[in-house]
Amino acid sequence: MLEDKLSIVAKAMKRSEIRELLKLVARPDIISFAGGMPDPKLFPSKVIAEVASKVLEKEPERALQYGPTEGDAELRKELAKWDGVDIDNILITTASQQGLDLVSKIFIDPGDTIMVGYPTYLGGLQAFNSYAAKFIGIPLDDEGMRVDILEDTLQKLSREENLPKFIYIVPDFQNPTGVTMPTERRKRVLELASKYDLFILSDTPYRPLRYSGEPCANFFHLDGGKERVITLFTFSKILCPGFRLGYIVAPAVVIDKLVIAKQGTDLCTPSFTQAIVREIMKQNMFGAHIKNLVSAYREKRDGMLNALNKYMPKIDGLRWTRPDGGLFLWLTLPEGMDANIMFKKAVKDKIAYVVGSAFHYDGGCRNTIRLNFSFPSLEQIDEGIRRLAGVIEEEAREVLCRGE
Amino acid sequence: MLEDKLSIVAKAMKRSEIRELLKLVARPDIISFAGGMPDPKLFPSKVIAEVASKVLEKEPERALQYGPTEGDAELRKELAKWDGVDIDNILITTASQQGLDLVSKIFIDPGDTIMVGYPTYLGGLQAFNSYAAKFIGIPLDDEGMRVDILEDTLQKLSREENLPKFIYIVPDFQNPTGVTMPTERRKRVLELASKYDLFILSDTPYRPLRYSGEPCANFFHLDGGKERVITLFTFSKILCPGFRLGYIVAPAVVIDKLVIAKQGTDLCTPSFTQAIVREIMKQNMFGAHIKNLVSAYREKRDGMLNALNKYMPKIDGLRWTRPDGGLFLWLTLPEGMDANIMFKKAVKDKIAYVVGSAFHYDGGCRNTIRLNFSFPSLEQIDEGIRRLAGVIEEEAREVLCRGE
Repeated sequence: MLEDKLSIVAKAMKRSEIRELLKLVARPDIISFAGGMPDPKLFPSKVIAEVASKVLEKEPERALQYGPTEGDAELRKELAKWDGVDIDNILITTASQQGLDLVSKIFIDPGDTIMVGYPTYLGGLQAFNSYAAKFIGIPLDDEGMRVDILEDTLQKLSREENLPKFIYIVPDFQNPTGVTMPTERRKRVLELASKYDLFILSDTPYRPLRYSGEPCANFFHLDGGKERVITLFTFSKILCPGFRLGYIVAPAVVIDKLVIAKQGTDLCTPSFTQAIVREIMKQNMFGAHIKNLVSAYREKRDGMLNALNKYMPKIDGLRWTRPDGGLFLWLTLPEGMDANIMFKKAVKDKIAYVVGSAFHYDGGCRNTIRLNFSFPSLEQIDEGIRRLAGVIEEEAREVLCRGE
Repeated sequence: MLEDKLSIVAKAMKRSEIRELLKLVARPDIISFAGGMPDPKLFPSKVIAEVASKVLEKEPERALQYGPTEGDAELRKELAKWDGVDIDNILITTASQQGLDLVSKIFIDPGDTIMVGYPTYLGGLQAFNSYAAKFIGIPLDDEGMRVDILEDTLQKLSREENLPKFIYIVPDFQNPTGVTMPTERRKRVLELASKYDLFILSDTPYRPLRYSGEPCANFFHLDGGKERVITLFTFSKILCPGFRLGYIVAPAVVIDKLVIAKQGTDLCTPSFTQAIVREIMKQNMFGAHIKNLVSAYREKRDGMLNALNKYMPKIDGLRWTRPDGGLFLWLTLPEGMDANIMFKKAVKDKIAYVVGSAFHYDGGCRNTIRLNFSFPSLEQIDEGIRRLAGVIEEEAREVLCRGE
């Protein structure tokens, strides 16, 4: 009965594939490269406990009360300083998934076209989908979105008067592929955005987690005040996801609309966790902590790359990315293999991944796999890749021989 | 430039009047009956500090990690027990404003009609508005929504084939009027919902805060499994707003869709604050705390009612509600007076309220005022009502004489 009354977008809503997979692989005997969780052993729980009790002692009336929709003014000031922007350019959000939702709410009319990576972050697709967006996917190479295809596509869409509202990009250590867009390509993308009057939604959850290579310029710094960039950030990967704390950097006029949208969405972000993060920032405790994270995750990334080199069979077309940071790497199976079909065998061998098709808005590229290296231990990474290599070798033998 | 790209709903978004008023009255010399904040002196900050450090010591990896979108399983179990429902009927939300947003997202298509109290909670109107809903308002009396008018209106709308998707009701100590709908009237409303195939969105943030009279039956208990009721609850008024923690009670099939919608909105509610509330519930600490709140707020409500009796001028048409609970009471000025115009004079006399027109979807009833008694101290309540009485007396003299 109630089901008949669902909105058009709700009728089309489907459960996230990842989410259902994660349930399947929650068994303790399975080594999981699925999910995208930080290593909980790296949570600075003692620092958080100390700061939390200080905050509750010194400012309980502020830390437990409603706060401004824009976020704690002092925290916004710290973040503005960190990013070299004005406080009016900062809105605190209930982590960056809310950033995706709010940006969708204020920009997407049903049927609007959004340009996304092919593949891209699943949660972005989900957020845009819930506002009935349509997608155009731009394939990636080792430097992120292919700017030549982007240009051709925009040219074509412009002729058809069907230009997208914005381009959604995860520029640093992309989810799911782990690849990073170099500064030069970012400049080209910005030029195209300017030429075709689009804006860029830059989603940067992993940006501080760089394990090798040099940092690339942030889109909003390259934009230089031309107001073509909205940037999302979250503390989920550099502090903890359990706070649900992030922020948006955007032109003041956009922040203004986002604030109104946020009022109707959750009134304000939790004051308590904002107060804790504000104090951690004011005491300059982030630098050392991020250094720890980088060194621990670098070891895990290297562990996974070494294990891949060591165990993976030599098959034409089997390849993987070598990310300079973030939480993920991306494995491509030879054409004709299907990671979705192979998944059952993998689980039987007690190893799990996320099928790459989940990150393609149309469910394409079924020969791809996302591997997470932040959550499992070094030992699990080695053993898990050994098992996965076995599954791939067996599957390749079956599928590729059958195909001949 | 970016402004041209806003969605249709975003272009129509306006800042909340209350929000702008609250900025105006943040001066320490003003006694404010505006806002809807609990008394921060009643936050159990010591209990929270103790439980928080225990949680961070015992289960840091769980309390700081991503959690299930549905919410912490143990907390859901506690809540299900509390409400006498199944765990599948519970979704934890980032406070009840998110409940309003998620219900809107899965039920409202642009142009859908929603039936609301005239007046009703402003945040409800904002949430529905951001999905381009249309409103039909049902006037209230001292027992909430007028069921006779509701029946006539539904009959008329049914003939016009323009029935609303749902009826939004704040049944206990309504925001803004403070009135409560008796059990008998709730039954009548449910009968009408059944007759016209609608559901009821019951928003109950103040329900445990009853200072006099007998509790009324909850809509979802009266519904008896007929799946016509979705209920929102929040911990903002009985623990603290700074956690942003609430939950939805609904039929399992609705919870299922809400979970998918929540995935795209914020992935999950903060695990940290959920863990704290779970432990507080498991240790049965809520009962005693709510008893404290009830006794403190009862005194404040009585203080405001006494002050109104003592100071208000005897003018025909000047009246106010006598709520049995909650945070607000509602003052109606004689016809012809305008609380919006009077507001400037009030602020000049260092007293603030919220204009009642803000709670009417069409900005009507400008002769009404919402008064909050939970936040100010007993002394401020007495002095504030004295000042307000002076402002009203003066304004009445001017306006009503001019009118003659």
